[in-house]
Amino acid sequence: MATEVRNTLTRVPTRQRRNREHEVLDAAVDVFWRKGYSAASVQEVADAVGVLKGSLYHYISSKEELLFRIFDESHRDSLAIMQAVDALDLGPLEKLREYVLRFVTYYAENIKRVDLYFREWRFIEGELAHEVRQRRKAYDGFVRKLLQQAIDVGELPASTDVRVTTYYVVAAINGLPNWYRPKGRLTAAEVAERYADLTLAAVGAPPRQ
Amino acid sequence: MATEVRNTLTRVPTRQRRNREHEVLDAAVDVFWRKGYSAASVQEVADAVGVLKGSLYHYISSKEELLFRIFDESHRDSLAIMQAVDALDLGPLEKLREYVLRFVTYYAENIKRVDLYFREWRFIEGELAHEVRQRRKAYDGFVRKLLQQAIDVGELPASTDVRVTTYYVVAAINGLPNWYRPKGRLTAAEVAERYADLTLAAVGAPPRQ
Repeated sequence: MATEVRNTLTRVPTRQRRNREHEVLDAAVDVFWRKGYSAASVQEVADAVGVLKGSLYHYISSKEELLFRIFDESHRDSLAIMQAVDALDLGPLEKLREYVLRFVTYYAENIKRVDLYFREWRFIEGELAHEVRQRRKAYDGFVRKLLQQAIDVGELPASTDVRVTTYYVVAAINGLPNWYRPKGRLTAAEVAERYADLTLAAVGAPPRQ
Repeated sequence: MATEVRNTLTRVPTRQRRNREHEVLDAAVDVFWRKGYSAASVQEVADAVGVLKGSLYHYISSKEELLFRIFDESHRDSLAIMQAVDALDLGPLEKLREYVLRFVTYYAENIKRVDLYFREWRFIEGELAHEVRQRRKAYDGFVRKLLQQAIDVGELPASTDVRVTTYYVVAAINGLPNWYRPKGRLTAAEVAERYADLTLAAVGAPPRQ
């Protein structure tokens, strides 16, 4: 009963807080992406949101935490994609195709944020650095697992170098922010389709019927 | 005659100067790679070379010029590879294989420098930025040309998306510094061989006999 009352009392401010946090993170993506993380300041993020710098410290304790929180949001989205693909009733290579389709679509729709990640993740330090590194491994790990499963069920030859193949296709996909522009000739769905085809060909999947 | 005398007089200092420049650039690769370009200082490069900061300004006029000169050295090496491959008497896809073999070998043998390039090229500004951007296009352009030639001679189907395929394989190759370590299980030649196989498979080349 006491809990219910507290929830009712705090619900509105909490939602406002969450929206404001999201707004702060979006502004930080833009500022860090434009200036580079090292050169950017919390002041510039505050200016972009239109608040005093002091108010930002209600949401984050440092510039580094801001960067980590941006990465954190992206990581949750990526994890959700992996979990959804894992739950599909498909063979390993079809799961790989589905993963590339969904992941590239997400990338294409969040291109600045993803680009920022690949440029700046090294600059996270201390405990958070360990966390970021562990997460990077999750992406490689998911592709690696699917390739290994594909070998195990006979979809790929046992001679496949799972590790190098994983690095190759993950890097290829991660290169999307280097060139993709949302208003270019290809939609997110079209570029995802091409990346899925290229990936399946690279790993040596038999051509689709 | 006058020219010959001048050459004789300046030869030794010029060579010394060139060696010292190379030493300065190598030290700068290391410092920039370790600290990130924005956070690193010319002072730290001077400390790494073991000279006073003032002496560095005999060789370079600014931190940015130092970064550009590092990129410049790498670019010359890369251009030399492209020109050598272009001159080979091979079909387009065999040239692509040869290019990947040589390029990845070079990357693997110069991993810090290449990694630095991919992290920091965006931070070059002004006139030099234009130069760096033009050069980036040369790498994509070379792969793109070979893929187009492969279509023209019937090695690849006309339906190949040359542009997206180029971005995909160039990004895959450029990801090498993310994982490759010179003292790991694979030699530069071995990793180059795997990357060549993966690239030829990705673009849809028929399997080798």
